[in-house]
Amino acid sequence: MYAEDAGNGITLPASNSWASVPAVEKDQRVLTVDEKKGKKYENFSEWYNEVIEKADLTDKRYPVKGMNIWTPYGWKLMSLIDAETRRLVDENGHHEVKFPLLIPEDEFQKEADHIKGFGDEVFWVTHAGSTPLDVPLLLRPTSETAMYPIFDLWIRSHADLPLKIYQMVNVFRYETKQTRAFMRMREIHFFEAHTCHETEEEAEIQIREDLEMMDKLAEKLCMPYLKLRRTDWDKFPGAKYTVGGDALLPTGRLLQIAGIHQYLNNFAEAYDITYEGIDGEHRYVHQTTYGMSERLIGAMVSIHGDDKGVVLPPAFAPIQVLLIPIVYGEDPDLMDYCRDVLERLRKMGYRVDVDDRPDIRPGSKFYESEEKGIPLRIDMGGKEMEGKTVTLVRRDTGEKSTVSLEELEDSLEELMNTMEQEMFARAQSHLEDNIEDADDLGSISQEKVYRIGWCGTFECGENIEEATDRNILGTLYHGEEYSGKCIWCGKESSIAVYLCKTH
Amino acid sequence: MYAEDAGNGITLPASNSWASVPAVEKDQRVLTVDEKKGKKYENFSEWYNEVIEKADLTDKRYPVKGMNIWTPYGWKLMSLIDAETRRLVDENGHHEVKFPLLIPEDEFQKEADHIKGFGDEVFWVTHAGSTPLDVPLLLRPTSETAMYPIFDLWIRSHADLPLKIYQMVNVFRYETKQTRAFMRMREIHFFEAHTCHETEEEAEIQIREDLEMMDKLAEKLCMPYLKLRRTDWDKFPGAKYTVGGDALLPTGRLLQIAGIHQYLNNFAEAYDITYEGIDGEHRYVHQTTYGMSERLIGAMVSIHGDDKGVVLPPAFAPIQVLLIPIVYGEDPDLMDYCRDVLERLRKMGYRVDVDDRPDIRPGSKFYESEEKGIPLRIDMGGKEMEGKTVTLVRRDTGEKSTVSLEELEDSLEELMNTMEQEMFARAQSHLEDNIEDADDLGSISQEKVYRIGWCGTFECGENIEEATDRNILGTLYHGEEYSGKCIWCGKESSIAVYLCKTH
Repeated sequence: MYAEDAGNGITLPASNSWASVPAVEKDQRVLTVDEKKGKKYENFSEWYNEVIEKADLTDKRYPVKGMNIWTPYGWKLMSLIDAETRRLVDENGHHEVKFPLLIPEDEFQKEADHIKGFGDEVFWVTHAGSTPLDVPLLLRPTSETAMYPIFDLWIRSHADLPLKIYQMVNVFRYETKQTRAFMRMREIHFFEAHTCHETEEEAEIQIREDLEMMDKLAEKLCMPYLKLRRTDWDKFPGAKYTVGGDALLPTGRLLQIAGIHQYLNNFAEAYDITYEGIDGEHRYVHQTTYGMSERLIGAMVSIHGDDKGVVLPPAFAPIQVLLIPIVYGEDPDLMDYCRDVLERLRKMGYRVDVDDRPDIRPGSKFYESEEKGIPLRIDMGGKEMEGKTVTLVRRDTGEKSTVSLEELEDSLEELMNTMEQEMFARAQSHLEDNIEDADDLGSISQEKVYRIGWCGTFECGENIEEATDRNILGTLYHGEEYSGKCIWCGKESSIAVYLCKTH
Repeated sequence: MYAEDAGNGITLPASNSWASVPAVEKDQRVLTVDEKKGKKYENFSEWYNEVIEKADLTDKRYPVKGMNIWTPYGWKLMSLIDAETRRLVDENGHHEVKFPLLIPEDEFQKEADHIKGFGDEVFWVTHAGSTPLDVPLLLRPTSETAMYPIFDLWIRSHADLPLKIYQMVNVFRYETKQTRAFMRMREIHFFEAHTCHETEEEAEIQIREDLEMMDKLAEKLCMPYLKLRRTDWDKFPGAKYTVGGDALLPTGRLLQIAGIHQYLNNFAEAYDITYEGIDGEHRYVHQTTYGMSERLIGAMVSIHGDDKGVVLPPAFAPIQVLLIPIVYGEDPDLMDYCRDVLERLRKMGYRVDVDDRPDIRPGSKFYESEEKGIPLRIDMGGKEMEGKTVTLVRRDTGEKSTVSLEELEDSLEELMNTMEQEMFARAQSHLEDNIEDADDLGSISQEKVYRIGWCGTFECGENIEEATDRNILGTLYHGEEYSGKCIWCGKESSIAVYLCKTH
């Protein structure tokens, strides 16, 4: 017995081992299936495009397909996520570097699977001025082939290991599918960590640490995700295996938001990256990579947003608290009170702003702050000023509470924590509610994640994907007990795979 | 009388108005002409390449000419400079954005002078996979032509002005001259601020503010520089005028480290960027830009370094203080003492590290910390441990002082400030000592900056440059009184220009 009925006709794995944090108690759930209404669920694409435009997170009017402009608000959001990523990987012993963008054709072509995977989607620089280049250069689609010839120079002996570096750069992929802001772009804001180790075991430990870092980041993004070890035909080109981090969007489809790859010696052999062991023997290094991108924003916006606009997690919102004076006309005393509260909030370390535009009505300011997803609004009118209080309004639930200035610091901290936890919990419920066990192909019809038995053969995998028009995203990285039958051939199977459409 | 004899045969402008800070009193000068010895002055190129390699600021072995790898140490240094730049321009009301790298050919070709200036040195993307692109794309050499078609969409009325944005990105220029790390690269780490204003006056104010920001940054880089308004034939392609920030290298040649440009309506007309004024009329915006690059590092390293290695300014050194236990073998008590001091320094907010490698002798550690340019070394042996003291060693002068733990915080702060001021003062002296007035072409023979009279005509300017094999870098931005004769035609002239070879 591996699952239990969640009471709503949806079967959940008992252990919840597939989620990145402990399951949420049912009575804590803020969102039920019935509440999944609104444009977000009815016409996701239109809703998504609208809310990111209204929030001014990106400008899509740049005249090259798949290449958007990072607006001040969008870039600030990305920078805050990057800063947390940087903090986590620095703490894990990584060092930040920047490798050149352009990769010579001959270096790119050293690892066969990698070329197969990326060859069709690279942009080629062929000329400088009017001069044809001797060796064509490509724009990095990822940086293995830029870095690894140099790793060969950096690594001499075991004393140089582990080598753990990362960079945050733009990468380029000529997507032929329809592009979508933050999710499927041709110029992508990218994080890539690359590590080299003496042994496979050390590389395995790195992968576990990468997933722990991802968990910490996901917690602040309020974004549960599945950790799925991809099938062999779906792994990163050149990798031994790939763990995908997959977030569930309102569409019931998964979006890959992280990729963690075990390369073993594969690239090391192609690029001749060896080290001299303590015994004097030369061996190939073992390599891993950990990649993320601006998709974190795409997933975050999709998961938390509502029909009023985006909802940003407190940890990353460029403006965490917005003060709005409730005044029609002028009121210098109220403005003084606003400035006083603003100053207090700044001293507490919040990213805070005041919307003191005299010619805009408070109602429009509320509306705009909702569109921008500002986690907490502070309404300040005559009543608040007299009582030395403020009224706090949560963006995610609309809940209001009035607190005194003395309580403000504690209340804010508590509220921010509560919002973070509840936003995570709602997303977790949505994920749990949308995973279902399936025993036969006929029952696979909805837009959700199906857990099915699979015999492990490529043939059955291919048939399942074709018949269901879905992708096998893989098995749980941390494993799970399963005994069932391959949904295609009916053979007894202890492998459960997750089947879903993807973005 | 505009100049006085500095007593060493070198003539200095009396006002020193050309320098970015008040002149240093002669008795405060730490470096005299006699001290300008050593490899740095004898073979600059070789010295420069050696010190940046020993400090591990960059890796030049990437297999594409003019494209180097940012090592962890070099990138950290650049990031710290970027952070200060960001702080300054944010405070000035700028917002950070990121525009796409690739620019369509047709957008690039809208401003004629700009194409003339950059056309020969752009990299062209012509293919994606094996498919030729319909419209060739170029890698930005600078971002006017990427941004301005969008500014046209962002700006509607006077309420949208001023528009002040910036980005920190890589730009690409196909340099045909010999490349040099941080100074002349084909992939360049670049800062570019772009502003739009209602009036020319407002744009002029922005330029003055840009120069004030540059002064603040230069102070922390310990780097005086000249602010020279370039001649018409040397301004930025498409600009009305350009102010170059020029630093003097040990070679006696100038290196441009900043460019601030007044565009007036020039690009606005080409890209049709208009705003509706308060009177309902549509007018072209007035634009400025402010650019800097990794050259800041190139200049900084050249100016402060010595034959032992680079010398980094306290404000930007990735490691500001390095603790070195003076021990041969093991000494757990001393290591405890080290950790205690390390913790204190961290709490004070310094970027600090301890070199506790057991198998390396203290002498080698000293040597290495000098190569890396770490501003302050703290030597800690048995004597220091017993007396609860530490010995501080300045990188720039080698000066040693022993202070008690109680005095440590104050002493460190004082020492850091003193170093910053003295490093600036030495660089300032070097600059002052290398500016000389010249009345006739025959006296222009040394590697230094000559101040000469010029009638202001293109013909004389061209002749002067050809005859002296030097560039006219322009007139002082803040102006200076001058009455002399054009060094070429002999006509009376109130224009003094600065003539020098450049890097």
